[in-house]
Amino acid sequence: MKIELAENYGFCFGVKRAIKIAEENTNAATYGPLIHNSKEIARLDKDFKVGLVEDFQTFQPGDKAIVRTHGIVKDELQALKESGVDVVDATCPFVTKPQEIAQEMSEKGYSVVIFGDEKHPEIKGVKSYATHGALVVTEPKDLEDVKLHERVALIAQTTRKVEDYMEIANYLIPRHKEVRVFNTICNATFENQDAVRKLSKRADVMIIIGGKNSSNTKQLFNIAHENCSDSYHIEDEKELDFSWFDNKELCGISAGASTPDWIIQNVVDAIQAGVNS
Amino acid sequence: MKIELAENYGFCFGVKRAIKIAEENTNAATYGPLIHNSKEIARLDKDFKVGLVEDFQTFQPGDKAIVRTHGIVKDELQALKESGVDVVDATCPFVTKPQEIAQEMSEKGYSVVIFGDEKHPEIKGVKSYATHGALVVTEPKDLEDVKLHERVALIAQTTRKVEDYMEIANYLIPRHKEVRVFNTICNATFENQDAVRKLSKRADVMIIIGGKNSSNTKQLFNIAHENCSDSYHIEDEKELDFSWFDNKELCGISAGASTPDWIIQNVVDAIQAGVNS
Repeated sequence: MKIELAENYGFCFGVKRAIKIAEENTNAATYGPLIHNSKEIARLDKDFKVGLVEDFQTFQPGDKAIVRTHGIVKDELQALKESGVDVVDATCPFVTKPQEIAQEMSEKGYSVVIFGDEKHPEIKGVKSYATHGALVVTEPKDLEDVKLHERVALIAQTTRKVEDYMEIANYLIPRHKEVRVFNTICNATFENQDAVRKLSKRADVMIIIGGKNSSNTKQLFNIAHENCSDSYHIEDEKELDFSWFDNKELCGISAGASTPDWIIQNVVDAIQAGVNS
Repeated sequence: MKIELAENYGFCFGVKRAIKIAEENTNAATYGPLIHNSKEIARLDKDFKVGLVEDFQTFQPGDKAIVRTHGIVKDELQALKESGVDVVDATCPFVTKPQEIAQEMSEKGYSVVIFGDEKHPEIKGVKSYATHGALVVTEPKDLEDVKLHERVALIAQTTRKVEDYMEIANYLIPRHKEVRVFNTICNATFENQDAVRKLSKRADVMIIIGGKNSSNTKQLFNIAHENCSDSYHIEDEKELDFSWFDNKELCGISAGASTPDWIIQNVVDAIQAGVNS
């Protein structure tokens, strides 16, 4: 069986940047997981003494707090800064942008609609910047009984599928005088999605590696599964089941934006060893 | 055979308003046809001495010039006013709006894209307000080899089909940082289109009445024809061919926004008389 990596996969600009920031700020703690990959979080803790704090009120004056790639809620960032905590911001610049858009559009009187997962930290953060509130939706149905202004600003979670985003835009545009559609889906997301789409059309089995709570990894899995019914989402090589590869000729591999290369390499090595054993 | 009128058809708000303005301004001339209906233009000339001038330079100081529902090019409006001509503006307010949007968006640095017919007077007018120029397109293909800014403002001709407009929006949104989609298709257009869609699904033959150069009438005809292959676009009852009604049970009728009720009535009467004779 041949193993082929997607043309684009794995760590994006924002994740690489955040890990570099964490490695340069030892003896610190991130507020929430820096990225959605527990293995990499454990490595940062072990090798760089960058811990993890889940409640921001445990930070004390003088502590060093690293803000995760997904950003945090505006009030909490403000409170951290005001409490004398040394804040190091590792928010991905592609997430800062939708935060700024949410604030500006809300202040200008637009109804702000965010396409994404209400429970995802990125979206909690972006929503908190909409001064007059925002509506978070995942499908056009969520907009059916909602009253919005004539002018609507539409923002997407950075890791969403553009086709799904267009469905929301297509619902809103005929119903409102103006819809400002901000394309906040990041390029790395586009590129990884495009690459997995191509590869999964040719592959007999697809392995998508990444955190089970990673939004962009889940999107990659969905795209792979649309084209290749034998698609699997795993966090590391321990989850592999070698029966998946029986009578397969081409195994395609991709990984989410928060999956480090060393985990991907472990998976590739394990498949090769397992299939050949 | 039963004859049924669409739930909404004919004169829109802007056309009614323009005709009222013309009837109140006798001994005047419109610059270009006031509306796209030659029969109604002839009636205004005969009954209200409102003539028709095709070249704006023939207006002399003291003349009364009525600006047509579709609006005119910005520079010509300015020149008319400066030359001492008494300008009466019958531009439909739903056309003034896209003119204003084109100007504001162009001045704010957006690439302005107009979905419509480059040769239509409304679009010539709207385009002229885009200070730094605008691109007029009729289908996504027209955008393929074009270089636009990261931020794009999209405007539609008031009489276009919303489904076609969405195709342009869907092409632009994934390719640009921000697309401001202005829903400038007017409600009367929506309502007349919706009504003709419903009726043409039930009818055996559809008659669409309106000027052959009327954009909104052509759209109504296209919608009718999608659902009912025996659809015909006529300007008045003289164009009827009674063989169209052979063995038909339901004849649906609609009319463009510039078609006066008296013409519609003439057509209905003629069909009834012809079929029953």
